[in-house]
Amino acid sequence: MMEKKVLIYDTTLRDGTQAEGVNVSVEDKLRITEKLDAFGIHYIEGGWPGSNPKDDKYFEEVKNLKLKNSKIAAFGSTRRAYLKVEEDKLIQNLIKAETPVITIFGKAWDLHVIQALKTDLEKNLEMVFDTVSYLKKYTNEVIFIGEHFFDGYKSNSEYAVKVLQSAKDAGADFIVLADTNGGTLPNEIEKIIKEVKEKGIKENLGIHAHNDSDTAVWNSIVAVLNGAVMVHGTINGFGERCGNANLCSIIPNLSLKLGYETVPKENIRKLKEVSNFVADLVNLPVPKNMPYVGDSAFAHKGGVHASAVIKNSKLYEHINPEEVGNKRKVLVSDLAGKSNIIYKAKELNIPLDEKDPRLPELINKIKQLENYGYHYEAAEASLELLMRDFLGLLPKYFDLDAYRVLIARRYSDKMPISEATVRIKMENHYEHTASLGNGPVNALDKALKKALISKYPNLAEVELIDYKVRIVNESSGTAAKIRVLIESKDKDSRWGTVGVSENVIEASWQAVVDSLIYKLVKDNTKPVGES
Amino acid sequence: MMEKKVLIYDTTLRDGTQAEGVNVSVEDKLRITEKLDAFGIHYIEGGWPGSNPKDDKYFEEVKNLKLKNSKIAAFGSTRRAYLKVEEDKLIQNLIKAETPVITIFGKAWDLHVIQALKTDLEKNLEMVFDTVSYLKKYTNEVIFIGEHFFDGYKSNSEYAVKVLQSAKDAGADFIVLADTNGGTLPNEIEKIIKEVKEKGIKENLGIHAHNDSDTAVWNSIVAVLNGAVMVHGTINGFGERCGNANLCSIIPNLSLKLGYETVPKENIRKLKEVSNFVADLVNLPVPKNMPYVGDSAFAHKGGVHASAVIKNSKLYEHINPEEVGNKRKVLVSDLAGKSNIIYKAKELNIPLDEKDPRLPELINKIKQLENYGYHYEAAEASLELLMRDFLGLLPKYFDLDAYRVLIARRYSDKMPISEATVRIKMENHYEHTASLGNGPVNALDKALKKALISKYPNLAEVELIDYKVRIVNESSGTAAKIRVLIESKDKDSRWGTVGVSENVIEASWQAVVDSLIYKLVKDNTKPVGES
Repeated sequence: MMEKKVLIYDTTLRDGTQAEGVNVSVEDKLRITEKLDAFGIHYIEGGWPGSNPKDDKYFEEVKNLKLKNSKIAAFGSTRRAYLKVEEDKLIQNLIKAETPVITIFGKAWDLHVIQALKTDLEKNLEMVFDTVSYLKKYTNEVIFIGEHFFDGYKSNSEYAVKVLQSAKDAGADFIVLADTNGGTLPNEIEKIIKEVKEKGIKENLGIHAHNDSDTAVWNSIVAVLNGAVMVHGTINGFGERCGNANLCSIIPNLSLKLGYETVPKENIRKLKEVSNFVADLVNLPVPKNMPYVGDSAFAHKGGVHASAVIKNSKLYEHINPEEVGNKRKVLVSDLAGKSNIIYKAKELNIPLDEKDPRLPELINKIKQLENYGYHYEAAEASLELLMRDFLGLLPKYFDLDAYRVLIARRYSDKMPISEATVRIKMENHYEHTASLGNGPVNALDKALKKALISKYPNLAEVELIDYKVRIVNESSGTAAKIRVLIESKDKDSRWGTVGVSENVIEASWQAVVDSLIYKLVKDNTKPVGES
Repeated sequence: MMEKKVLIYDTTLRDGTQAEGVNVSVEDKLRITEKLDAFGIHYIEGGWPGSNPKDDKYFEEVKNLKLKNSKIAAFGSTRRAYLKVEEDKLIQNLIKAETPVITIFGKAWDLHVIQALKTDLEKNLEMVFDTVSYLKKYTNEVIFIGEHFFDGYKSNSEYAVKVLQSAKDAGADFIVLADTNGGTLPNEIEKIIKEVKEKGIKENLGIHAHNDSDTAVWNSIVAVLNGAVMVHGTINGFGERCGNANLCSIIPNLSLKLGYETVPKENIRKLKEVSNFVADLVNLPVPKNMPYVGDSAFAHKGGVHASAVIKNSKLYEHINPEEVGNKRKVLVSDLAGKSNIIYKAKELNIPLDEKDPRLPELINKIKQLENYGYHYEAAEASLELLMRDFLGLLPKYFDLDAYRVLIARRYSDKMPISEATVRIKMENHYEHTASLGNGPVNALDKALKKALISKYPNLAEVELIDYKVRIVNESSGTAAKIRVLIESKDKDSRWGTVGVSENVIEASWQAVVDSLIYKLVKDNTKPVGES
């Protein structure tokens, strides 16, 4: 079955960091390297030596990691047109990185050679040949990427193949076909790879796809089905524009559905963990609806459907979510059935037996709240507090007494002012605090934290990161009920809370209060006054 | 070229609303219907009659819309096993919706028939036949969806095809193959469709794909390449779990790259607008990296790259972003901005010439506001006011002087009180009014109307019917900028307005003020003091 193995080449640390908003430290890059190695990725492209001090530091430090599965690759371009390869500092930087693998890209589109490189076609072939053959003396493996290969092939197929042939003649170990602009569709990828093979480039082919046409995953797989043995991509598909091919979809598709060997099968259970880990370090969210690894990838709505999925999950799930380390999520939405609540309690580690006499009343209470407008699917922290409170499992941290917010603007001022006051009771005395804020919710959040922080210093770690407001009963406009969802985080987790009221401030207040109490519960904080 | 036409069937309003966190009003659904109609979508699936009061209201109201391009479809299942078709209330509800198209799904997976429907295979065939043939008497077109068709085919191909054959025999106009669990890959889709055609189901085939394997776009297109003439999907791929097939990728791939006719070619330029419009109304964001329509889909990082892209964009972009109404991000696309604004002005009946010397400044102003967080796709009334104001075409109805809102609650009371005061100037004197409200925005709206109504009695007709709040810069929580969208209506139209501020009350206030001024403009109301 050797022919069924596909080498996974991860470029999260290089191409992936081109995504908007990404800014990783050397430490982040090293931690990601270790994670990908443990996951079983075959190649990790670490950066472009000489392009910035961070990448240089990375290549210095990565040598000290004891990697078990991954080979580190340094990335760079062919030599410049007007320099000899041994004179080109960019090439020397690659050698200095001392990686077991060097990946070189060369232009495979005639238009690019002429207009972007401003050289002639023949010279570009020499640049490819020189660079690859020179580097082969200094490192174990050279991978050649034909940049813009598919566009180049469509423009001048003969020349595009010549570029690959030059790299092959120079001893490149792998020839990777790149769809750099991401515009090629799978039917073209298939046709072109077949033709390339007919033209003599038959072995050790790879694919490097971008997602501009929303087909990067299948572009990569169709290349594999046609003989490619190496797939380039990034974790979560992070990358410039619409991103690179998403390894978090390609790996399970190849391994679980198409019978290929990618990372070790037992590691695929860590897929969601790897996805979250990388997302957290590069500071980009994993979209909830991302296939395989998103939080909602296996979420079920609707009562009949939800109870059926528990009985026979195969009927409603394309794979068992545990195979990729994900889990089934039953959305508690309008359907506070018994099995849903029991399932939820188990998930939240709340002891609740199917025969518990309080169960019908709890279900009834949730049903009432949902009818009123509460939505717990994106606010599990509030659901947990509700259930704990109902079952007598929620400590009393403080008593709320009153709040007040004032928002006022004169048109001679640019912005309104927002001032909040909060009064709470702890240990038999009142804390009465006031705060300004950018807006009313911010002011309330600050005033409440101010009142609590001396007794509960861990609340300083809580940050409100998202805030959503919806009308629940749409027909009556601003007099209707309003649902506020707040997402909070601390250093190691995120949670959602909800509030509902006819008053947007009251609804926000409820969600803010829940967010802070949840933090106390989560940290197992002892209530003041308890010994 | 008639054979190259693909019918686009949008199920955003039904399957799309299954996405986590989506909750649309009847008003939203009607506005989306109008937008999709104007865009040129062939079929709009509006909901499931009888499943909830909202969908019933929708089908009642949608009859009053004057649609130019789209046929409305009502969605439902085959009759229940133990009822005759004419006795089944679910079927009668479909007829009552009085749509030109009814779409019926029936189980095409033997396992589902036995385990979920708990009936036998033969009976299920009868249910399909009865339902389709009965409904054909009451409506122009019946579309049949074979639910779980691909999984069913893999389990029992003979039976799965029999289900389709029953629908065909009963007179179904289209036979749609659904990959309900989203686990099927394009190579299987291709193989199975070919076999289905060999088995006699050759014409009027459709595809309904979900994105659980990250291949829904190509699953849909590969079906078209193999003869399917109808594609089901949703705007932005919104939908349960990992979403439905994304029409915002399928339409440009088919129309711009594969030579098919989908929506009218000139409308594809509105793709991004439609994408944003729907996203704003269903209150889900469009991911920045979404192909074709995401804000970063054509974003270029890096200086050399950016300047090269200006010289010859074909080198770095798979299509011209303007073809889908998107824009290059590095480029201050003066020209694109200009033609857009001129186009908009024409649409809004605002006299504005291409050579108007004020145009660059207007474009600049709109650009600044958009950078700040304003979104005009779902708030054209605010855009119209902005343009009129800038061009000196907006009458001065009143001057704003100040507002103030107080929200306060003691925990001994059930609800907070909200009190607003507003001070405005008209005809050289001040109106200073106060009002309570269910919440702060309601109180402000009432106080402002109170101040204006004696001079502008038509404002009594304005009703705020929806209210949406979204964080613009999501990373900074309650201290971030907040965008409020308000939908208003009077007896004969609806309009959207927008406000942005760090303060939710200030943002709401802006949208409320715009809503009332827009009503005055719309009615050609004469400002007080003018003779």
